[in-house]
Amino acid sequence: MILTVTLNAALDLTYRVPHLVPHASHRVREVTERPGGKGLNVARVLGALGFRTTVTGFVGGEMGRVLRALLAADAAEHIAGGGTATVTDALFQVAGRTRRTVAVVDETTGDTTQFNEPGPHITPEEWDGFLTAYRALLGRGAEAVALCGSLPPGVPVGAYATLVREARTAGIPVLLDTDGEPLRRGLAARPDIVKPNAEELAGITGTAEPLRAARAAQRRGAHAVAASLGADGMLLVTQDGAWSAAVPERLAGNPTGAGDSAVAGLLSGLAEGLPWPDRLTRAVALSAATVRSPVAGEFDEPTYTRMLTSVRVRKAETP
Amino acid sequence: MILTVTLNAALDLTYRVPHLVPHASHRVREVTERPGGKGLNVARVLGALGFRTTVTGFVGGEMGRVLRALLAADAAEHIAGGGTATVTDALFQVAGRTRRTVAVVDETTGDTTQFNEPGPHITPEEWDGFLTAYRALLGRGAEAVALCGSLPPGVPVGAYATLVREARTAGIPVLLDTDGEPLRRGLAARPDIVKPNAEELAGITGTAEPLRAARAAQRRGAHAVAASLGADGMLLVTQDGAWSAAVPERLAGNPTGAGDSAVAGLLSGLAEGLPWPDRLTRAVALSAATVRSPVAGEFDEPTYTRMLTSVRVRKAETP
Repeated sequence: MILTVTLNAALDLTYRVPHLVPHASHRVREVTERPGGKGLNVARVLGALGFRTTVTGFVGGEMGRVLRALLAADAAEHIAGGGTATVTDALFQVAGRTRRTVAVVDETTGDTTQFNEPGPHITPEEWDGFLTAYRALLGRGAEAVALCGSLPPGVPVGAYATLVREARTAGIPVLLDTDGEPLRRGLAARPDIVKPNAEELAGITGTAEPLRAARAAQRRGAHAVAASLGADGMLLVTQDGAWSAAVPERLAGNPTGAGDSAVAGLLSGLAEGLPWPDRLTRAVALSAATVRSPVAGEFDEPTYTRMLTSVRVRKAETP
Repeated sequence: MILTVTLNAALDLTYRVPHLVPHASHRVREVTERPGGKGLNVARVLGALGFRTTVTGFVGGEMGRVLRALLAADAAEHIAGGGTATVTDALFQVAGRTRRTVAVVDETTGDTTQFNEPGPHITPEEWDGFLTAYRALLGRGAEAVALCGSLPPGVPVGAYATLVREARTAGIPVLLDTDGEPLRRGLAARPDIVKPNAEELAGITGTAEPLRAARAAQRRGAHAVAASLGADGMLLVTQDGAWSAAVPERLAGNPTGAGDSAVAGLLSGLAEGLPWPDRLTRAVALSAATVRSPVAGEFDEPTYTRMLTSVRVRKAETP
């Protein structure tokens, strides 16, 4: 099983409006609700790829109840559709309330305006309780762990460093996808992979040139750095070498969730023991298939299949 | 007791953001949740004025549960603060889910951008069940009824006409505050008071001049028409005469909920048997005190007290 951790899980709402006009009143034409937060998105993609996945992180309040009900409904639908690999809910209940995010989609321009609520306040006792539950999940045969997203208030800024160390002590490969100080601290705990985007990478290394920045992040502790560079694909720096990969064509679409799909690609390749260039191919193909999906955060299967054979991987040279 | 009906009740969320930028991502600094929909706002103001109030309308799903919990918490807080008149929850449970509204407050400009979800679909059986419950509430000593806001999907467009007739049959004065076709139909059932704003009044009468439009609305069936005209105060047309009332000064503030406070003022005056000009004074004073309140939809008590003696009521002349 692959374990994904989403400390700041959310209930994601999408509102479709004919046209967004600031300071006006809008009738929302369509409301979509689904489990949100990076690790939950990663788990959804892994499930669709056929990997058994367990999700954990904090959940609470009425929004938490809605989130868990949606996870259960997704699993039931997956099984009803003939699927076998479902997402198992191992979320940790807290007293605070799971946050919402609201994405307002302007149907005229296609653009999205995003509002993210702050997360629930986590008490020191809840953090300790979560750590115990996390150790137990690691002991239940996790093949890989992904630590994803921002930290809710109250969680120590070194939280990811602690979770990375626990996974490494248990001998389980661990991927970290966060930014800012939690990423900086997490790097020092020597995760197997970090997956920053170009901006996050520049933020912690002070270097805008991706290969130079990726090597700097590697020196700070990551065994491998997989940087997502938007339309320019991905750059991977490992102890065995460096590669870049991109799709052979420009893809129009919605990039929401493309980074999370890249994480799912890397993790699935890691769990299967694929060589690094193949993991990179999978990550880029899934990202591209996510951009092309009509539903934000899902991936288009035909695009994925096609991209698996058309993504170009090249050795990257030191700039 | 005063009964307020909110068929399309909502859970109102207010998001404060530093500055709203379309197509950007925003961290919400502060989230406020409260029971919403016009009739629930009217009840809150009536409760603060010391009137026993019962609320009904449709409620369902997780958001409905949150709404009811907030109503209960408000009542408990009111009692703890030494109050005696609370808002009694007589909402009618349905299978659909109570909608949300999201008001995004731009802290730089002070402006609000509003997103309103559609309401739950109400089945014919639920509508019949509600009618039975409504009749029972009318029989429990209601002194006045307010029918407020839009209709959720599935409810017949003539719903307010039906509810007006039931109240009149029971001998209970009824106020109608809605717009469009539900208002047009409701008027024909001869409510005691309708409270349109200038735009709603023009919409159903085709006349932009307020006094002419109010008289036209009266001819269509309302015994009295109380039109709220924003900063220009209110205009009241009854069978005994016509009056206008306004505050003696321009008030800066947030007009959200000012119309609902006007309804509360009219209803409270009706329940106490005050003469028409005094009901109008109360409505305008409460509206003004709501505009001046730092919290949207609440009223500023000192402003209310001051306005009660400074609102000017004049006989309105036929234009």
